[in-house]
Amino acid sequence: MGYFITFEGIEGCGKTTQIKLLAERLTAAGRRVTQTREPGGCAIADQIRSILLDADNRAMLPHAELLLYAAARAQHVGEVVKPALDEGGVVLCDRFTDATIAYQSDGRGIDRATVDTLNALACRGIRPDLTVLIDCEPVQGLERARRRIDASSGPREERFELEALAFHQRVRDGYLALAAGEPHRFLLVNGSDTIERIAATIARQVVSRMEEQHHAVR
Amino acid sequence: MGYFITFEGIEGCGKTTQIKLLAERLTAAGRRVTQTREPGGCAIADQIRSILLDADNRAMLPHAELLLYAAARAQHVGEVVKPALDEGGVVLCDRFTDATIAYQSDGRGIDRATVDTLNALACRGIRPDLTVLIDCEPVQGLERARRRIDASSGPREERFELEALAFHQRVRDGYLALAAGEPHRFLLVNGSDTIERIAATIARQVVSRMEEQHHAVR
Repeated sequence: MGYFITFEGIEGCGKTTQIKLLAERLTAAGRRVTQTREPGGCAIADQIRSILLDADNRAMLPHAELLLYAAARAQHVGEVVKPALDEGGVVLCDRFTDATIAYQSDGRGIDRATVDTLNALACRGIRPDLTVLIDCEPVQGLERARRRIDASSGPREERFELEALAFHQRVRDGYLALAAGEPHRFLLVNGSDTIERIAATIARQVVSRMEEQHHAVR
Repeated sequence: MGYFITFEGIEGCGKTTQIKLLAERLTAAGRRVTQTREPGGCAIADQIRSILLDADNRAMLPHAELLLYAAARAQHVGEVVKPALDEGGVVLCDRFTDATIAYQSDGRGIDRATVDTLNALACRGIRPDLTVLIDCEPVQGLERARRRIDASSGPREERFELEALAFHQRVRDGYLALAAGEPHRFLLVNGSDTIERIAATIARQVVSRMEEQHHAVR
């Protein structure tokens, strides 16, 4: 029986670090773990990722952006997430449908119904069992994201980091509203806490919820 | 007052040649002409085109493909087609929404309502005034397309040419059904006729329909 955990939060909130720590913990406990991310996670979706995050693509229109995220998700869900869940694995995914709501609807102003339609079309019934939202002040997150980009020798995936602070504030507010609306699916953690304490909170919750699901199915 | 003409038909039907000839004719008559194509037609949509047509992307899932076409169209319509029409130009576009219905719905089997939803989302109210469908036997068209690909030194944009003949037959039938359903918008021409005769038919119809539109608006 598979278990699907998504990690959400603004740039620099610490998702990547926490996914890595949780993956190590679950792997050590004998679970089969797939660590992945959106946009991307497989060859075709990674090609779409390059278009989406390339800072040179400043002319990208909001609806084109939304449709590219949906395309990358359709490929990633069908090729990676669904097969891994079908095989009983735990899938840890860096960003998923909630990011599209927070960034493209709250951030860009596209109506929520359109975003929901595209998320449904891309996911074809796959839904996160648990979503970890690492909440973080945009000023702090962006500073951390910028340091990482500057230190990286790869392509500058910074089209979103270049957005104004007000954009990131809307995204954060959008995420918090989503978490408030679905308290059972979301685990809201404070990103200004230490890495170790955040990791411990997440691990405790994940273990307890996976057990809960296990018993519910029995 | 702009005028939007799309050209449709299976691979190798002769669209590109006819678009070029019509563009020359309209330009000589003093019209401002924008010649463009889908997928593509602007920098971001061309990046999406590379993903869509790359023969190495055999793993692409039907819904991801559909969403990529919609993304490319949203960018192209917003950045190229709509501005050119707003300035009173004639836009000649190699493939548009009908191709998505014929290839992704009739060809791939995606339900028509989903394709229509995505076409509407990408076009935001822009519709062809006239659609020239160059009908052609798949065997003949594919042979012509293959000769062109073999002779080209560019990237091998042949993901669709590699599909089975039955796929191209469904696409052709889909196109013919669309033309039968909207006889006023469609101009159906026989692709096995000579280039010169096809060009003359198209030019005559375009001139007469553009005059019709002109008088209707007055």
